Amino acid sequence: MLQESCSSMISLCPPQWLTDEESLLVNPLVSTEERMDWVLSLGRKNSCSGHEGQGGPFAAAVFDADDHRLIAAGVNLVLPAGCSVLHAEIVALIRAEQLLGSHRLDLLAGRHFELVSSTEPCAMCLGAIPWAGIHRLVCGARDEDARAIGFDEGDKPDAWQTKLSQRGIEVVTGVCQQAAIALLQDYRGEHGRLY
Amino acid sequence: MLQESCSSMISLCPPQWLTDEESLLVNPLVSTEERMDWVLSLGRKNSCSGHEGQGGPFAAAVFDADDHRLIAAGVNLVLPAGCSVLHAEIVALIRAEQLLGSHRLDLLAGRHFELVSSTEPCAMCLGAIPWAGIHRLVCGARDEDARAIGFDEGDKPDAWQTKLSQRGIEVVTGVCQQAAIALLQDYRGEHGRLY
Repeated sequence: MLQESCSSMISLCPPQWLTDEESLLVNPLVSTEERMDWVLSLGRKNSCSGHEGQGGPFAAAVFDADDHRLIAAGVNLVLPAGCSVLHAEIVALIRAEQLLGSHRLDLLAGRHFELVSSTEPCAMCLGAIPWAGIHRLVCGARDEDARAIGFDEGDKPDAWQTKLSQRGIEVVTGVCQQAAIALLQDYRGEHGRLY
Repeated sequence: MLQESCSSMISLCPPQWLTDEESLLVNPLVSTEERMDWVLSLGRKNSCSGHEGQGGPFAAAVFDADDHRLIAAGVNLVLPAGCSVLHAEIVALIRAEQLLGSHRLDLLAGRHFELVSSTEPCAMCLGAIPWAGIHRLVCGARDEDARAIGFDEGDKPDAWQTKLSQRGIEVVTGVCQQAAIALLQDYRGEHGRLY
């Protein structure tokens, strides 16, 4: 199906530093706070101007919801990839699907997956979560935290947490909330360029 | 920033038949109905089992909103690419951004862009439209048409058309609606596999 030469190909290849961080994570992160803390560390690295092609203070990761091992992480790659779709959650979901070989993670019998996100997902990423077959969403900063700092979260459905629950997706939010807010505020203070 | 060898790379390369169709479209499609008719023809081709890796009865395309020339088309590639994110609208937006070299099309001074979609976008794609910098959304089948046939459109915000308008995005829907509904119904009748 693929062309040999393709003028409009996009390759999603994660930054080297991100896969290095993944490689260092050999043990499961048993508590929700540990997983969030690790994801926030990725957001800090991604927004650090020392990293080539830095892409904003957002990070996410898909974990096995039973044994708490990392499947794949994502960071915001909108600017480095020149692609508006590549929010951290989308990158993590795409990578997890590719690594596990399924376009719906809930088709993998007997397994459950958690998406940990540094900030409550924007409208696009929220819409993507059911399609990916995620069972549990864990968020750091709240929607209102991101908006208060000036980030546009898009137009989400009212009572979106209830709507995800009705689809069988558990939502836990406000985990390590102050650290997650600090990540957004630090970026705003240093850069000012908002998505 | 990119790794030389990358274990979790996804390459979005459009099917050969799609780029062939694009190449055949040398003239602008001046009327909204002509543009929708062309997009619906892509949806029919994509859902035809004669095409390798067929991916469902959904198609979309980004046009220049002033001269009505095609920028890039997209079809649903969820199954062939094994990626839940690759709805037709997302594929069209990503390709348009790559071709025009901007992660926000509204940053291209003096130009305006229209997204034509065979069915009103799902919650994820709806959320993606403002981030891509689209100025006008044209839809064929309505949300309720797709739901009536059994497709899951996700949880959209109430009054989403008004919310897009408030962001400066014009919405025109129900264009060639009967033909757009027929495309969905034919797929349902032949395949039954729904997204």
